[in-house]
Amino acid sequence: MQPIGDLATICHERGVMFHSDAIQAFGKEPVDVQAWGLDLLSITAHKVYGPKGTGLLYLRRGTPFTSQMVGGAHENERRGGTENVAGIVGLAAAAERVVAGMDREQARLRRLTDSLVARVTGQIADTRRNGHPTARIGNTVNLSFAGCDGNGLLLGLDLEGVAVSSGSACAVGSLKPSHVLQAMGVPDPEAKAAVRISLGESNTEQDVDQIVAALTKVVGRLRMVGG
Amino acid sequence: MQPIGDLATICHERGVMFHSDAIQAFGKEPVDVQAWGLDLLSITAHKVYGPKGTGLLYLRRGTPFTSQMVGGAHENERRGGTENVAGIVGLAAAAERVVAGMDREQARLRRLTDSLVARVTGQIADTRRNGHPTARIGNTVNLSFAGCDGNGLLLGLDLEGVAVSSGSACAVGSLKPSHVLQAMGVPDPEAKAAVRISLGESNTEQDVDQIVAALTKVVGRLRMVGG
Repeated sequence: MQPIGDLATICHERGVMFHSDAIQAFGKEPVDVQAWGLDLLSITAHKVYGPKGTGLLYLRRGTPFTSQMVGGAHENERRGGTENVAGIVGLAAAAERVVAGMDREQARLRRLTDSLVARVTGQIADTRRNGHPTARIGNTVNLSFAGCDGNGLLLGLDLEGVAVSSGSACAVGSLKPSHVLQAMGVPDPEAKAAVRISLGESNTEQDVDQIVAALTKVVGRLRMVGG
Repeated sequence: MQPIGDLATICHERGVMFHSDAIQAFGKEPVDVQAWGLDLLSITAHKVYGPKGTGLLYLRRGTPFTSQMVGGAHENERRGGTENVAGIVGLAAAAERVVAGMDREQARLRRLTDSLVARVTGQIADTRRNGHPTARIGNTVNLSFAGCDGNGLLLGLDLEGVAVSSGSACAVGSLKPSHVLQAMGVPDPEAKAAVRISLGESNTEQDVDQIVAALTKVVGRLRMVGG
């Protein structure tokens, strides 16, 4: 998690607009465009159990902008094209729902995730937890398993019924180590050995048991065959 | 309706790519990218009873293009962003459905629309049918009622429970006469007195009765008050 309000202040002191991609934060942490002084902010529906393919751009009143999609006077000439009505309604409903239950659900997910990390690092040697231990989203963790390959982990876990990510969905198919992990100072061999595990509202203690068992099995096998 | 295949040929002879916006034609007339030699073609779901906000761009293999939306490697690097899965599936289902029943339904709508035009022009004086009488989409007709204002007609008909359009949805809110009608040679006073009436699969003979009665009443009232 980044100090968004401080970053916005630094930008504004230099006359620069500030946009925050709050897609991972929204529904998990309080998001406050006024307190943070944001000019623009993005969220998406599918990270809060809403319809895929729908997002929201907050634009502070008076913020200049150029339309990305032209060709019609829709949405006060901000975005050409017939509106995705079901998506818009679905995003609003999903956002209201997730915000209403946020505090309780995120506390539950943080406990589950912390338990997952404690068990994995306790049972599997040479496991590195990437990122800050506490200043982070509670339900997501990035772990490196030295000597393993991120895609090998992903495929092996998939066969065990566990879906994880080896990088950003925006760079799916890429075999390069994550530039974000590199920027955070994670050495390349460990950045390539990383997976991102996220828990959501359907996950339970039993799922954590399954993930720990699957990771133990897959990491053991990959290390035996050397990759 | 335009001779799309001929237009594509003229363009290709000069090394120019040809894109057709087939949004109004698809599901009403046969659309054949191969026979017409199209490089690109657009359709939308909401004109064939599918989900609003979803469209399809056909791109002939090998056609060069620049992504409009960047920021991710989704869709083979053609369009960044998480896919609107429900919209994509809904468009495909709607397209299959409307094409399967097209010949029969369009014949029905053409009969209904022709009956509507015959009755309106027979009952209401100084009515002009804009556009070609036969080389046109069967379910849509553009009519001008001399001495009336398009927006007045639209509002009056709305009060009678009849929803029509006074211009393109892309130019909603505009009070200028349609540039398409102008290009077709319709004089400004009549272009400003035009409404577009479209019938769809839920419409019946009873709806035509209602439209004729509403038009007779609203046009009569507008002509009495002079606008």
